Amino acid sequence: MKTTYLRLSLIFFCLTFSFSFSQTKEGMTHSGQKTGQQKFPVQSFKELENPTPIPIQQWKKHTKNTIGWGDTHSRYKKEVPTSKATLSEKINLQAWKGEKVSAQWVVSAGRKDLNISVELSDLKEKSGNSKISKNHMESAFVRYVLTDELNKDKKGACGHRKPADFDSSLVADIIDPITPTLKIAKHNTRPGWISIEIPKNTKAGSYTGTVKILSDNKTLKKLPISIKVIDRILPEAKDWDFHLDLWQNPYAVARYHQTELWSEAHFKALEKEMGHYANAGGKSITASIIDRPWDGQTHDPFNSMVRWTKTLDGQWHFNFEVFDKWVEFMMDQGITKQINAYTMIPWKLSFAYFDEASNKTQHLETQPGEKLYEEVWVAMLSSFADHLKEKGWFEKTYIAMDERPMETMQETIKVIHKADKDFKISFAGAKHPELYPDVDDYCLTLESEFSKAVLKERKKSGKISTFYTSCSHVAPNSFTFSSPAESEWYAWHAAATGLDGYLRWAYNSWVLEPLLDSRFTTWAAGDTYFVYPGGRSSLRFENLQAGVQAFEKIQILKDEFEKAGNNEALNELNKILTNFELENFNKDLVSKNLKEANEFLNSF
Amino acid sequence: MKTTYLRLSLIFFCLTFSFSFSQTKEGMTHSGQKTGQQKFPVQSFKELENPTPIPIQQWKKHTKNTIGWGDTHSRYKKEVPTSKATLSEKINLQAWKGEKVSAQWVVSAGRKDLNISVELSDLKEKSGNSKISKNHMESAFVRYVLTDELNKDKKGACGHRKPADFDSSLVADIIDPITPTLKIAKHNTRPGWISIEIPKNTKAGSYTGTVKILSDNKTLKKLPISIKVIDRILPEAKDWDFHLDLWQNPYAVARYHQTELWSEAHFKALEKEMGHYANAGGKSITASIIDRPWDGQTHDPFNSMVRWTKTLDGQWHFNFEVFDKWVEFMMDQGITKQINAYTMIPWKLSFAYFDEASNKTQHLETQPGEKLYEEVWVAMLSSFADHLKEKGWFEKTYIAMDERPMETMQETIKVIHKADKDFKISFAGAKHPELYPDVDDYCLTLESEFSKAVLKERKKSGKISTFYTSCSHVAPNSFTFSSPAESEWYAWHAAATGLDGYLRWAYNSWVLEPLLDSRFTTWAAGDTYFVYPGGRSSLRFENLQAGVQAFEKIQILKDEFEKAGNNEALNELNKILTNFELENFNKDLVSKNLKEANEFLNSF
Repeated sequence: MKTTYLRLSLIFFCLTFSFSFSQTKEGMTHSGQKTGQQKFPVQSFKELENPTPIPIQQWKKHTKNTIGWGDTHSRYKKEVPTSKATLSEKINLQAWKGEKVSAQWVVSAGRKDLNISVELSDLKEKSGNSKISKNHMESAFVRYVLTDELNKDKKGACGHRKPADFDSSLVADIIDPITPTLKIAKHNTRPGWISIEIPKNTKAGSYTGTVKILSDNKTLKKLPISIKVIDRILPEAKDWDFHLDLWQNPYAVARYHQTELWSEAHFKALEKEMGHYANAGGKSITASIIDRPWDGQTHDPFNSMVRWTKTLDGQWHFNFEVFDKWVEFMMDQGITKQINAYTMIPWKLSFAYFDEASNKTQHLETQPGEKLYEEVWVAMLSSFADHLKEKGWFEKTYIAMDERPMETMQETIKVIHKADKDFKISFAGAKHPELYPDVDDYCLTLESEFSKAVLKERKKSGKISTFYTSCSHVAPNSFTFSSPAESEWYAWHAAATGLDGYLRWAYNSWVLEPLLDSRFTTWAAGDTYFVYPGGRSSLRFENLQAGVQAFEKIQILKDEFEKAGNNEALNELNKILTNFELENFNKDLVSKNLKEANEFLNSF
Repeated sequence: MKTTYLRLSLIFFCLTFSFSFSQTKEGMTHSGQKTGQQKFPVQSFKELENPTPIPIQQWKKHTKNTIGWGDTHSRYKKEVPTSKATLSEKINLQAWKGEKVSAQWVVSAGRKDLNISVELSDLKEKSGNSKISKNHMESAFVRYVLTDELNKDKKGACGHRKPADFDSSLVADIIDPITPTLKIAKHNTRPGWISIEIPKNTKAGSYTGTVKILSDNKTLKKLPISIKVIDRILPEAKDWDFHLDLWQNPYAVARYHQTELWSEAHFKALEKEMGHYANAGGKSITASIIDRPWDGQTHDPFNSMVRWTKTLDGQWHFNFEVFDKWVEFMMDQGITKQINAYTMIPWKLSFAYFDEASNKTQHLETQPGEKLYEEVWVAMLSSFADHLKEKGWFEKTYIAMDERPMETMQETIKVIHKADKDFKISFAGAKHPELYPDVDDYCLTLESEFSKAVLKERKKSGKISTFYTSCSHVAPNSFTFSSPAESEWYAWHAAATGLDGYLRWAYNSWVLEPLLDSRFTTWAAGDTYFVYPGGRSSLRFENLQAGVQAFEKIQILKDEFEKAGNNEALNELNKILTNFELENFNKDLVSKNLKEANEFLNSF
């Protein structure tokens, strides 16, 4: 009797923890499509079925396997045979010492099913005395993910969306160095990605090697690769000037990796997922100082890293334990310049706190301009300032807000300065010259502009001025269907307009199954993340990073030209840069312009 | 521009705190009926409209005002003229020193609208040397509240209910000493209530006085009242033997009085609202050690008085600050015998805790018999035991559960004893003799019975044995439509069956507007509360207390008879008590039996 009861009960009450998920449960994407594999695959995954039919007629002209070097700005279609004419037999790269460069190869399986693996060789200098070890190279498959398209009016990509209302297609975006071999079914195309990080101590000169493409361990083709190492050194990423601010979401990482928040396992996963941001010279640590700073706009909303408590005697108390853990972790990854603390003006003006009296999480509803708002926030910010000073972080911490009206900003700034007149302030949003003096880190939307005089003044006083793109921008943008070259364009645009850098609101606010389907319930696909789980990069991200490297090279060369009085070179560089002003943006010329511009940078 | 924006915003975002309500908002009852007055009136309130039409024909025979003494067991109907024949001109009460006795007067306004107030006189002993000051007397109006009825099958009163499915009527139940004057419209009846607490030092003898009924300050009638004070002393309530356990709900008090939980204002309100429980010799403090021990069965669910926290490093931590405040407050009111800590087996097996990692209230789902359940509860109970020992409360604290299956209880008891083998246990529910040895405070449902031998054994070993009534009992019960005499019957039943006392699950789990409409969404009206806001008692509660006093008198007399070998009196008393065994319960004889039995107790 007793045993029966307990057994029955166990069926009805399953033991679950928050953040503990069944490993074996089948995944489902945001479009409600079952993935046919376990939830949240990290090590290996199967791409979803291609919604586009294979154009059999086209393949009739491609009865052999086509293999060659492609272009890092291109997304090769899975169902389309790659024309031999668009590929090269050999690739010649150029790089500074310390730079990371990439190349893309393509295989179109015209003859039969293949089972591809890749073998790298060391790159050897002609003389034979010097080499770039293959340990500095990475081979990856380019993987396909589902995407959608712009809004039907082609004027943007904002707003709530249902998958059924948009065309879906597979798009080459994920750079997957984890999967060692990959099947290519006959009449399918598969690209691959090679990255080379030139060690700083490499001798200048020309290096050559091969990338061997194999099927079932038999060589299909040896692709020669050569790289000219220029006698210039690109500083380490952490020393780059470019102000790259991509908002990190540690909550998405905990969910995807099924770890308890802030546990050892969580930080281990974060180490992997935050790597690309550090490598690209990420400057700002995204910290949430309230619960849901952007309400629930991402699949994994941000909790507060600061614990707000109203004690039994009615006092406010703030605990920074989680904030500290996160900031210290990010600093250990090399992101040490800045901490952006979001936000005093959340989209829903409701502030969660733990109320000891009711023993529950409660919400305070108040807004800038109200006495209660001021009281609570002066208490919070004073406590925060004390804590930051103790940690030595006060100078690098910015109270950060985004996309709020000017009057609200002004009321809020009053409160910040009441708590501590030296608190730095960050704002991403519309152009309000009234706010310039108070905002130490001002990020304008792409189409807005600081005047030259303002930029000069801001730079002189140590203020940061950047720009951002969002769902409202058709192009350039970084949707999974955007041209990857557009991500490279960003940093060139900053260089052309005298801005310090670029901000994007989502580095890794992953959708349900980010490796399989980049579509979300809001905005066009890919808007919410730049990188993929498992430490996987993307065509978009690698191109972004290429742009950032170019920005650094531009600063170095400009400085040199100026010092040397090399006006000819300076003028030519400035002329090239005008191509990256917004009014000169031309979707069809971006890739060409970038290539020419890079060629120029590498000619010194 | 700025001003306009702020003004507009203020309209949309109103400043609200949890537990802060607008004082001027109109009330609404659980039946969705607007009350026509402010929410939660404390000082004065208007009764809701009488759904029963006035029987004008009956009033044609009552063209004068009828005024006289009625009966404390009767509910006089508002719309019905009281027959002069059922009232008395004079009332003769009897009491022990220290006892509280009551009388009910009735006015039926046959002639015109009245505006009633009441004037008490001191009660004077014949010799004129001694008196009972009117300071020991209380005058109150009996007020009408909406009620419903049993389930349509007349077999009980359990289950969810919609007001529309049941007949509603006004019923005389509230004893309201706060309202000084009250209008009686022509063709309406209004009772009043007089209580007298005989001071312990009163000289035995006969005391007389008057209760003057006035309208617009003109005397309508002088009602003579006399009381025979018997030369016996009833001990103080705190020293009574009767184990009265009515579950208190401090959360309902905070909501009704619109105070912050555990604030000074909350305790001030609690002082008023818990008074009747203390005066009636309440023995047990109801404490919640988890959130929602009974899920949301009451309008104001119980939060946890213990703060459960899972710290960032994954440890359990328990804070007893609120628990201590509540227990200390109740002890200050005179409730010092016992603390019942609910519960290890909530109806929904989900345990809320504050999770520092996610910075949120989370829920642990586990149940008795599971490893996780044992781990968490052993941690909790060990910490609780340490704390209770430090406070000197361990001996009086019972881990309390109710209405759970035996096997679940057995699994739970194992866990309790693992944490501390000396922890006391309380259980209210079905009869499981297997549990008798482990349950120190066992409350059976009315129709169950401990055997004489078990009761003897339990008493010997200091274990408490009581009974409870619930929605499943047609009568005796304490719905607002039950005969008030049935509440007096409880303690007589305990005396008759050798039980230690009585338990009821709700002392003050108030509905939305308890002073106006006693109906709730579940169970028959009045099931969820015995007393009314503002420190107001009820016909049910005053009769309950009368029964408890009788229980004490029975113990004293029995003891005396036994010591004196007065078998005749002992046998007569025992014979009288058989009337209060359940099998001899007769709804129509309860009042008569109680009067005779009280008469007997007062004859010694």
